[in-house]
Amino acid sequence: MTVSVSNIQERLLLGPGPSPVTDRILQAMARPTLGHLDPQFLAIMDDVNERLRRVYGTTNELTFPVSGTGSAAQEASLANVVEPGDKVIVGINGVFGGRLTEMARRMGAEVVTVEAEWGRIIDPQRMIEAHAAHPEARVLAIVHAETSTGVRQPLKEIGEVLAGSETLFLVDAVTSLGGIPVDVDAHHIDVCYSGTQKCLGVPPGLAPITFSPRAVERIRSRKSPCQSWYLDAALLADYVGAGAQRKYHHTAPINMMYGLHEGLVLLEEEGIEARFRRHAEVGAALQSSLEERGFTLFAQEGHRLPQLTSAALPGGREEGPVRKELLTRFGIEVGGGLGPAAGKIWRVGLMGSGATHESVGRLLAAVDELLG
Amino acid sequence: MTVSVSNIQERLLLGPGPSPVTDRILQAMARPTLGHLDPQFLAIMDDVNERLRRVYGTTNELTFPVSGTGSAAQEASLANVVEPGDKVIVGINGVFGGRLTEMARRMGAEVVTVEAEWGRIIDPQRMIEAHAAHPEARVLAIVHAETSTGVRQPLKEIGEVLAGSETLFLVDAVTSLGGIPVDVDAHHIDVCYSGTQKCLGVPPGLAPITFSPRAVERIRSRKSPCQSWYLDAALLADYVGAGAQRKYHHTAPINMMYGLHEGLVLLEEEGIEARFRRHAEVGAALQSSLEERGFTLFAQEGHRLPQLTSAALPGGREEGPVRKELLTRFGIEVGGGLGPAAGKIWRVGLMGSGATHESVGRLLAAVDELLG
Repeated sequence: MTVSVSNIQERLLLGPGPSPVTDRILQAMARPTLGHLDPQFLAIMDDVNERLRRVYGTTNELTFPVSGTGSAAQEASLANVVEPGDKVIVGINGVFGGRLTEMARRMGAEVVTVEAEWGRIIDPQRMIEAHAAHPEARVLAIVHAETSTGVRQPLKEIGEVLAGSETLFLVDAVTSLGGIPVDVDAHHIDVCYSGTQKCLGVPPGLAPITFSPRAVERIRSRKSPCQSWYLDAALLADYVGAGAQRKYHHTAPINMMYGLHEGLVLLEEEGIEARFRRHAEVGAALQSSLEERGFTLFAQEGHRLPQLTSAALPGGREEGPVRKELLTRFGIEVGGGLGPAAGKIWRVGLMGSGATHESVGRLLAAVDELLG
Repeated sequence: MTVSVSNIQERLLLGPGPSPVTDRILQAMARPTLGHLDPQFLAIMDDVNERLRRVYGTTNELTFPVSGTGSAAQEASLANVVEPGDKVIVGINGVFGGRLTEMARRMGAEVVTVEAEWGRIIDPQRMIEAHAAHPEARVLAIVHAETSTGVRQPLKEIGEVLAGSETLFLVDAVTSLGGIPVDVDAHHIDVCYSGTQKCLGVPPGLAPITFSPRAVERIRSRKSPCQSWYLDAALLADYVGAGAQRKYHHTAPINMMYGLHEGLVLLEEEGIEARFRRHAEVGAALQSSLEERGFTLFAQEGHRLPQLTSAALPGGREEGPVRKELLTRFGIEVGGGLGPAAGKIWRVGLMGSGATHESVGRLLAAVDELLG
C-alpha cells in the first residue's frame, strides 16, 4: 500500500507526549522557509528566546532552543558543564534520572546516584545529604516532572542548599515547562532543559534550554572542549544571542522555530498563570474520575503531576489490549508504563491544548465503554 | 514591534541552504501530529527510510534520518565508528572537512589531515597515499560536495582502495544528496550523511544517515560506548528499523518527518535521474551566465557542483553590500564566502525546487540591475 501523509487519521493525543498541536501552530509551521541568517528569522529566534525566559522564570541571557528533541537538550545540559572525571550526583526515580546517569557516565563522569522507588519523590533531604557527603560534586541533577511515573519532584530546598555551594543545579523540565511553574531563578537552577512536545503543545523537534550566569562561567572555564561540537553552548552562544556575532554554526530548524514561536504566543495570550491553573484543574478532575472508576493512581499522593497521570487499571486488568483498542476504536492515544511499571499502568497526558475537560470527557466515555 | 510568523516576507532562497520548500511539503508538515509509536507514524518512517535508500543508492539496512540538522548527522557519523585513540584520516579543502577534524579530535581521535587549497579538489591519490602511510586508520573521511567552495570531490578511486582495507570510508553528502548521484554502495561508502534542507528541498531539522554492514559491525564491536547517547546508532537501530522492537529512544520530530516523506515522494515523482539532470542543466546555465557577466568562478574547472556555484564579483567588487541589496530590494538570498573566501565570493545554491531556469532568470535580472 502506498504510504501518504495526506491519509493520516487524526488522534487525540493523551499520551506522555507529543501532545495535541493546534491548527494555528501547524499553520505557522507551513509559512515560507527563511534563511537562518535572514534578519526576519533572527528576529523570530530572539523573540522565541525572550518568551522562553518568561516561561522558564529566568533572566538568563543564554536561553535558546537546542536543534533536536528533549533528549538532545538533556545531553547538551550535561555535556556543557561536565568534564571527564567530574563527580555528578543524580537522583533516579524513573527513566529520565536513569538516562541522566547513563549520559553522564558516557561523558566520563563519576556518578553518585540517589535512588527512590518509581512513583515516589526523592526526599530532598536525601539529595542534600548526598551533596554534604560529596561537596566536591560539580553538578547535581534531578528530574522535575518524571514522565515515566507522573511524579512532581520538590526543588526548593535542594536549590537553596546548592546556591551556596560550588555545585551546579541541573533540572530536567521536559514535561513541566508550560504546565506547572519551573521558576528557574527562584529555585536557583543553573541548567534547565525541556522539549516542545509536552505542555508547550508544539511538535517535537526543538528543545529549550537555559544556563545561569554561573553555568556560563563554568562553560567558559572548561579545561577540555565540550565533547559535542553540535551541542557546544559556547559556540551556539555566538549564533543565538541577541547581541551575538550571529556566527554560522549549524542551520537552525527554521519551520520548527515558527511553530515554537506561535506556541509561545498562544501561551501568553492565554496567560502563563491561567495555563498553569487549567493544567491543575483538568489534571485533578481526571485523577479523581479515574479513582472513582477503580483505577489506582501510581504516583505518590501530594506529589502528582496534573499534566501526567499514571494509573493502574481496575481489578488488575491487563493494560496493553485496552490501550490498543482505545487507539484503534476511539482514536485516543495514551501511553503504557516503562521499566518496572511496564504492562501495569497507563500514562495519560493532559498537556498543552490537550488539557481540557473535553479531553477528559472523551477519554472517560471511551474507558467506560471498554471497561464497563 | 510585535514579531509574528504570519508577517514573514517570502524570499527566493538561492543561498547554500536552506533551499526553497514547495507548498506540498509545507502542507504535509501541517498535518496532524501523531505519536512516535503510532502505527501510522511508523509506516511513514519506514517508507522514508526505504526512499532514502533509493536516493543514497544503497541497500544498507541501517538508514534513517537523525533527529537534528546536518551537523548532528555529521557528529553521529564519527561518534558511532570512532573510539578514543583511533586514527582518522580527514581531507580538508573547506569548512566542512575542517569541522570533521574538529569533531573527531573532540572524540579523542588522532587525526591525520590531507589539505588542499579551498576551491580545489583533494587529489584522490593523496588520500590513497595517506592511507598507505597510515593503514591502521580506522576511518577515512572526506566531503563529497563542499558547501563552502562549490567543489565536487571524486570518490571512486578512494572507495575502491578502502574497500579492501580495514578503514571505513566516511562521506559528507550534505549538499550532494538528491542533487548529484552519491551512489553509496557503488562507491564502497561505509558511513554517509546529509541534511534535508539542500537538494531534498525540505526545511532543516532532519539529517539522513546510512551505515554499511561493516560500519554496523564496527559499531557492534566497540570497546567503549558511543560518547553520545542521543546519536548512538546501536540504540537508534532498535527504534528505526522496520524489523526492530520499536523500543522507545527519543521522540522523533513527527511533523518534520512528514515533510521529508513528502519531499522524497516529490523526488520520485520527478524521477531521481531527471532530478540530477535538472540540477546539472540549471547549474551549468548559471555558471556560464555568470562568466559572461565577468564573474570569476571559484571552484576548480571540471569539478564544479551544479547545485552550488561559488563566484567572485566582476572587477573585484565588494560582495557584501550587493548581496544585502539583493535580499532587501529583490527578496533573493545568496550566501557569502566563508574562511579564506569570506568577503570575496558569492555562493549561489540552485537546489531542490530552486533549481530552475526561472530562479536563474530572476537572479540574473537582479544582478544586471545591481551591477549594470
